[in-house]
Amino acid sequence: MSVNLKLDLTYDGTAYSGFQWQKQVDTIQGCLEEALDTLYKQKIRIAGAGRTDAGVHARGQVVTYTAPALIPPIKVPLALNSLLPEDIVVTAAAVVPDNFHARFSARRKIYSYNLDLGRYPRVMLRRYTYHHPEALDVIEIQEAATLFEGKHDFRAFRARGSAVRRTERTLNHIFVDYKCDEELLSIIFEGEGFLYKMVRMIAGTLLRVGRDEITREAVALALRGENPAAVGPTAPARGLCLEKVIY
Amino acid sequence: MSVNLKLDLTYDGTAYSGFQWQKQVDTIQGCLEEALDTLYKQKIRIAGAGRTDAGVHARGQVVTYTAPALIPPIKVPLALNSLLPEDIVVTAAAVVPDNFHARFSARRKIYSYNLDLGRYPRVMLRRYTYHHPEALDVIEIQEAATLFEGKHDFRAFRARGSAVRRTERTLNHIFVDYKCDEELLSIIFEGEGFLYKMVRMIAGTLLRVGRDEITREAVALALRGENPAAVGPTAPARGLCLEKVIY
Repeated sequence: MSVNLKLDLTYDGTAYSGFQWQKQVDTIQGCLEEALDTLYKQKIRIAGAGRTDAGVHARGQVVTYTAPALIPPIKVPLALNSLLPEDIVVTAAAVVPDNFHARFSARRKIYSYNLDLGRYPRVMLRRYTYHHPEALDVIEIQEAATLFEGKHDFRAFRARGSAVRRTERTLNHIFVDYKCDEELLSIIFEGEGFLYKMVRMIAGTLLRVGRDEITREAVALALRGENPAAVGPTAPARGLCLEKVIY
Repeated sequence: MSVNLKLDLTYDGTAYSGFQWQKQVDTIQGCLEEALDTLYKQKIRIAGAGRTDAGVHARGQVVTYTAPALIPPIKVPLALNSLLPEDIVVTAAAVVPDNFHARFSARRKIYSYNLDLGRYPRVMLRRYTYHHPEALDVIEIQEAATLFEGKHDFRAFRARGSAVRRTERTLNHIFVDYKCDEELLSIIFEGEGFLYKMVRMIAGTLLRVGRDEITREAVALALRGENPAAVGPTAPARGLCLEKVIY
């Protein structure tokens, strides 16, 4: 008798070509499925809550898969971690109802975009932050961030060539967390859905506001699709982390 | 006219075979000297305050070198950082008196030994902490740590085969910093001198005290050279960081 298992997953995405399986390159899904195949001695396919891009990290990725009921869930994290590379760690496993799906059951996701504002990059944060030594007007960033909250057509804030049709999304909240003493800035995004590269494009846009290169008004226009020049650039992958999936 | 330059240096030691130059392997000294050679277009040799081992990190390494007075010191960090790999960062440069030497002028050094006490390792701390999920009696560690403070013959707490003759050292202070909520433990060592692998051997010994495997009395005997079995093991390199050199 098989069961539907849910795993909580954390990873340092630096060395990976993203979450989603691809031929001949290292991916999170590829590594995890390889470990699962070894553990269960059969092919296992997982579903992930969100596809993170190359170089993007996760502290709270969620995956589900159909597991042959051979191994008590409580033993699964340690067993998998012993098979996984060091930069991927399973932190929980639980049996969930058969109709629970990592992606389709997700109600909200929380991403953080993290910046090191120090004059020189701090080596131990470098893999997990975008180093931005130029001065930023954090108040302006905070004000501009509120423009994105709520339901909007985020068409302008997605990767070129993205084929998705419906481009309306609801961003429930953007929280700008500025730790002045530590010279750290995190922008936290909580939303019901995200277009491809949307978080990084909003982050890139907000940074331009913070550098006084564009105004809040320009951002408001961009959000109405009337000022594509104000959008982006896509902020570097290393600053992005999938923090949590809410079901 | 040449000048004596002092650099403050930080690095993630994960990818390096230690600080000291060695043939055909990546070392911090090797990378820094290569960057300096490129910058000054001539051979530069540096002196480092302390030789960190393979996998050991630094937030406050110091090096000195004789620089042809071509580049204003204020421009040296950015110029070097553009030549250095991402995991080595120069954070300051200053002209110092000719008789100042990174190693010989050092009065004290501060090292930290850092532990992740979480049930599962946190991926973003993993390179910089030793993951120790087993329960630790932090009060016992604190008590045992005080035994090491002061001037002692640390002969028993050095790497086998170490050829140094004088084995007396003064450890001015050991501070046990336990962040219960974050499940982090750091043991901070401030001393006038350290034998080879001494910090990691003391850390390994203290962890055995914390796991209730040896008593404080056994440690006191070991420190008098009467109980070598109580010493060590050498705690893993990744937990160690050279925090600061005091002149």
